[in-house]
Amino acid sequence: MGRYELEYPKDKDNSVKRYNQLASYSLRTIHGIVNSAQFVNLSFNPPNSPFPVILPMIGQMGSFDRPSADDGDPLDLYVHGYVSSRLMNLSRDGNGDGDGEHPAGMPVCASATHVDGLVLALSSFSHNYNYRSAILFGHATLVQDPDEKLWAMELITNSVVPDRWRHSRLPVTSAELQSTALLKVRIASASSKIRDGQAEDPRADLENEAAVGSIWTGVLPVHQTIGEPLPGPNNRVDLPGYIAEYRSSFNEDGREHSINAANNK
Amino acid sequence: MGRYELEYPKDKDNSVKRYNQLASYSLRTIHGIVNSAQFVNLSFNPPNSPFPVILPMIGQMGSFDRPSADDGDPLDLYVHGYVSSRLMNLSRDGNGDGDGEHPAGMPVCASATHVDGLVLALSSFSHNYNYRSAILFGHATLVQDPDEKLWAMELITNSVVPDRWRHSRLPVTSAELQSTALLKVRIASASSKIRDGQAEDPRADLENEAAVGSIWTGVLPVHQTIGEPLPGPNNRVDLPGYIAEYRSSFNEDGREHSINAANNK
Repeated sequence: MGRYELEYPKDKDNSVKRYNQLASYSLRTIHGIVNSAQFVNLSFNPPNSPFPVILPMIGQMGSFDRPSADDGDPLDLYVHGYVSSRLMNLSRDGNGDGDGEHPAGMPVCASATHVDGLVLALSSFSHNYNYRSAILFGHATLVQDPDEKLWAMELITNSVVPDRWRHSRLPVTSAELQSTALLKVRIASASSKIRDGQAEDPRADLENEAAVGSIWTGVLPVHQTIGEPLPGPNNRVDLPGYIAEYRSSFNEDGREHSINAANNK
Repeated sequence: MGRYELEYPKDKDNSVKRYNQLASYSLRTIHGIVNSAQFVNLSFNPPNSPFPVILPMIGQMGSFDRPSADDGDPLDLYVHGYVSSRLMNLSRDGNGDGDGEHPAGMPVCASATHVDGLVLALSSFSHNYNYRSAILFGHATLVQDPDEKLWAMELITNSVVPDRWRHSRLPVTSAELQSTALLKVRIASASSKIRDGQAEDPRADLENEAAVGSIWTGVLPVHQTIGEPLPGPNNRVDLPGYIAEYRSSFNEDGREHSINAANNK
């Protein structure tokens, strides 16, 4: 780690306008929100439609050129999805050959959001969520180098369950590699917002004895839970330690994070 | 309820192209996914930027004209958000006065996604998620009728915790109503995808004795959990029943749903 935290420069696309005291442009913060989320949403503009499209996809940020990079370093976003034929066709354009509609890649927005708590105030209008949200802008291209594709599949698989890649059926077949399409998003700018803490009521509400004496205020902490593993019909193996440990740390970390968010720690 | 389930007509915007056996166009299914999600993502195109923007917002579907409508009926989407000044400015255009860039309202895409499980197969390339995902296209306008605004705030507040509205500080002040901006999205088309069940391995992998004998396959069910309520510093009230009951049914329903999804029930 260096002596300072890198930040995305503010520009007209990524500058947070409202509640900007909640904003962060730190690479470590933004990449950490994406890399701890179970999926990202990718938005793009299909041709001949007035509407942008949002697709939920499995994604992870990393650096193929510098695999030892961590969340604080410049990273690319790799995504793998199922509903993506339109997206894949559009981004086929932008693979450096200079032709097609999007020579630099297709402009996309990626976002990742964690809900950490429901914040119940005296007035409905003061209700809020504790959350962490990242938004990234960039250009998407199809990954074509087979080595990069293999590396990115390992990155994405291990983001679902850490260490799953080397515990799955290997080696990868060439048919698997050919039939799988991955997108790489080069990030142009990004920002994040984090809301934590307790309910904030205006003074007038806090001085309203009838309200304060009758309305429960506080935070309902929220986190994702992984339940009891359900072996498939063809499974013959006891649950391995790396899965059991991931489940237990995922659940404990999530629970703790939601409580710390409410307590502003 | 009628004798049949209404569906959104398929058009070029909403037709699911890949894995279309997972698709549903049923209003009840799509609206149910949105109305049980803690937030929706809204995507739109800001002026003078190549990138669409995704904003996470609190939203709920309902019908102001027919408040008794349920998830199977035609509904509008109401959203309330914090990062939305650009969005609000853009949709101010489209309030029926026929001028501005978007006379019918701003074209937006809304999406809601639930992760129900991590599906671990023999090969990394056969891994999957169990999920429910809805995507809706429509035109967003600012809600200007004070009665509709009040009704929509009640709808949205009760989507955070059922019955919270009438247990919060009332009546609403005119300052609260004036300072709050809500968007209404009239839905043009929509679709959903639901993946459930166990891991599906190709025959070649199932015949690979070394793989089947060593790799755990199955589903790690995933659901959102509401933890122990954390009263705020100004709270003087015991936790009311409607909050305790919501927490307990939310947690139990989520747990059961994730297990049923894996078991394809």
